[in-house]
Amino acid sequence: MRAKRARGDLAYFGGTPGFAEDIRVGTPNVPAKDRYLELVSEAIDRRWLSNLGPLVRRFEALSAPRTLRAHNTATNNATTALQIAVRACGITGEVIMPSFTFVASAHAMNWIGLTPVFADVDPETGTLDPRSVAKAVSPRTGGILGVHIWGNLCDTAGLDDVARAAGVPLVFDSAQAFGCRPLLPGPSAGAGMAEVFSFHATKILNCFEGGLVATDSAEVHSRVRSMHNFGFDEAMDVVGPGTNAKMNESSAAMGIASIEHLDDMLKVYRALYLRYRQGLAQVPGITLMAAPRGQSHNHQYVVVRVDPEVAGLGRDRLSDILGAENIRTKKYFSPGCHRMRPYRQDAGHTPVGLPVTEMLTERVLALPTGLSVTPGDVDRICDVLAAAVRYG
Amino acid sequence: MRAKRARGDLAYFGGTPGFAEDIRVGTPNVPAKDRYLELVSEAIDRRWLSNLGPLVRRFEALSAPRTLRAHNTATNNATTALQIAVRACGITGEVIMPSFTFVASAHAMNWIGLTPVFADVDPETGTLDPRSVAKAVSPRTGGILGVHIWGNLCDTAGLDDVARAAGVPLVFDSAQAFGCRPLLPGPSAGAGMAEVFSFHATKILNCFEGGLVATDSAEVHSRVRSMHNFGFDEAMDVVGPGTNAKMNESSAAMGIASIEHLDDMLKVYRALYLRYRQGLAQVPGITLMAAPRGQSHNHQYVVVRVDPEVAGLGRDRLSDILGAENIRTKKYFSPGCHRMRPYRQDAGHTPVGLPVTEMLTERVLALPTGLSVTPGDVDRICDVLAAAVRYG
Repeated sequence: MRAKRARGDLAYFGGTPGFAEDIRVGTPNVPAKDRYLELVSEAIDRRWLSNLGPLVRRFEALSAPRTLRAHNTATNNATTALQIAVRACGITGEVIMPSFTFVASAHAMNWIGLTPVFADVDPETGTLDPRSVAKAVSPRTGGILGVHIWGNLCDTAGLDDVARAAGVPLVFDSAQAFGCRPLLPGPSAGAGMAEVFSFHATKILNCFEGGLVATDSAEVHSRVRSMHNFGFDEAMDVVGPGTNAKMNESSAAMGIASIEHLDDMLKVYRALYLRYRQGLAQVPGITLMAAPRGQSHNHQYVVVRVDPEVAGLGRDRLSDILGAENIRTKKYFSPGCHRMRPYRQDAGHTPVGLPVTEMLTERVLALPTGLSVTPGDVDRICDVLAAAVRYG
Repeated sequence: MRAKRARGDLAYFGGTPGFAEDIRVGTPNVPAKDRYLELVSEAIDRRWLSNLGPLVRRFEALSAPRTLRAHNTATNNATTALQIAVRACGITGEVIMPSFTFVASAHAMNWIGLTPVFADVDPETGTLDPRSVAKAVSPRTGGILGVHIWGNLCDTAGLDDVARAAGVPLVFDSAQAFGCRPLLPGPSAGAGMAEVFSFHATKILNCFEGGLVATDSAEVHSRVRSMHNFGFDEAMDVVGPGTNAKMNESSAAMGIASIEHLDDMLKVYRALYLRYRQGLAQVPGITLMAAPRGQSHNHQYVVVRVDPEVAGLGRDRLSDILGAENIRTKKYFSPGCHRMRPYRQDAGHTPVGLPVTEMLTERVLALPTGLSVTPGDVDRICDVLAAAVRYG
């Protein structure tokens, strides 16, 4: 692709698209296809395809050094994992959480009869703001769900303070944060009674579909194990409520084959993130959402904030211009959950103002990254972004 | 194995076990491993691993001639499928259902805040008895969930009458009934607003883990599609509640590879069932639970009823004697859900008597069958059963 040096070079205005084929956010990473096929083939020969099989156990063991949690339970996806985590922590009634997240966070609560109550987020990190959470606390509050959005860890100490003051459990939705941990071990590494990771196809580490509940509490872990397998205890007596959230052996095979390459993948994502940072440094009104200090980061999402008063164009128009170049961006996350039909009618979901959420949902845009994206691709995307701001 | 001609030949009394290795109920069927590996390999190359991929669409299309339903939505398992089906049909409050079923049927309701209310079953088929259901109906009744246990179709017309009289939706748990349909087309084939199938690893057709919601109602279908993908509609707006119940491409690949061999598998299961019938015909007190007339049957479970007053020994002792021979039976289903800890304390779950359920849960035993079981194995199992009754 030649550089976009004039308005007419942009496909949106009649030029040739910068990419002949779509380049996307979240194209699945499969770093070791042959290894996956070998593992799943062995599982088939073993005729053990689900029900806490040996590959699931292995994947759980391999995950432990990444979550830094004592107990790790693999699940079929992160939504059921969230349902189990909050229930295993004894949360009932209202759950204070961000509106600025993928709808699954709120829907997982709603699905099992809990009530999402939305609080605002920090403008720099996009994560739940403890001050806003404190304002949203009421006698009906049953728990707090922080979301480590884009891999940015929440202010876990701040949220922990609010949760303790309210006397309710704190749980984290770490769906986007596998590979993201505090650099210094300490209370914040173990904040929350439980947290949930996602291994959905579009995540840095994918299991086709998959999730994980991680906790340091043996008691919570015992309930999670039971709940994810129909409420059975180890003697196969049904001792409590439960669902089917078991990860199967094919998903675990993909997880094992992938986690063996996780450090290499993290390097690729970091390099692409830095390349974007360099490429966008001089583009006015396009700000790369920075990774917070003091934590390792997976850079799974490269997100920019588009400030129209500086860039001269808004996020949606930018997305259209990029789309014409076959650059498929994602508005992660827009609209906020509180604007969605199931949550917008009952004011009980929004006891506090959400000005930062409103701002971010109108301005953020996730750009392509991952194993299928090259540094050269990033350069071309940055070139299109610069041209869009100049001519768009 | 030589025949068990004396008490001491039984391993339980010191003889040599009839099987050197465990022979089990529900060993997974994988009729086309290479085909599965080919399909999943193509999915990986396509980098489309979940999110309503082409293999899921194909599996749904291939399922339609088997369910005889207009609309079929593949899911990650049958438990989430049940949750979605009852919610898509608008059921709230109490759900009348059998206690004589796998705990997943009741737990799926309980997980989303519905209240299982147990009614009794027919002694011959093990399926929900419409007369008992009628007695359990109350102003709190929100729906009826029939379970086609062991592949035996319920008295769908009878249940439909009760549901109409009560003015509530009727849904079927067909987890064990893929391949089981009425022989004559008519109202009973389409009974119920929706039904749910399972493709768990231990089912005749397996997808590692998997399920299906089938319905003839375009309206219910539309809600099911949305609910199984986070409440999104086709324009990707969140229009209602939802969860993540998407089947992934690996599971669909296994489903496609297997459904291509379904008729052959059904023949194997039928032959084994008939072999058991012949082998057990002369064994006093051991009655093969017969397949109802007027329907096709998958014979996925071969279940006997042990009548101790005739057999001279009870089900549990028989199970132990078989276990000593490395014949791993299953007490499908025992105990009844109403005897399990989450349901036994609140009398609201059991407004009517459950004498048939009590009788069956104490007497039934499922015997090994499936692609990994040979006719010769069945002969040897029947020989052990006869010897157990004679000497046990």
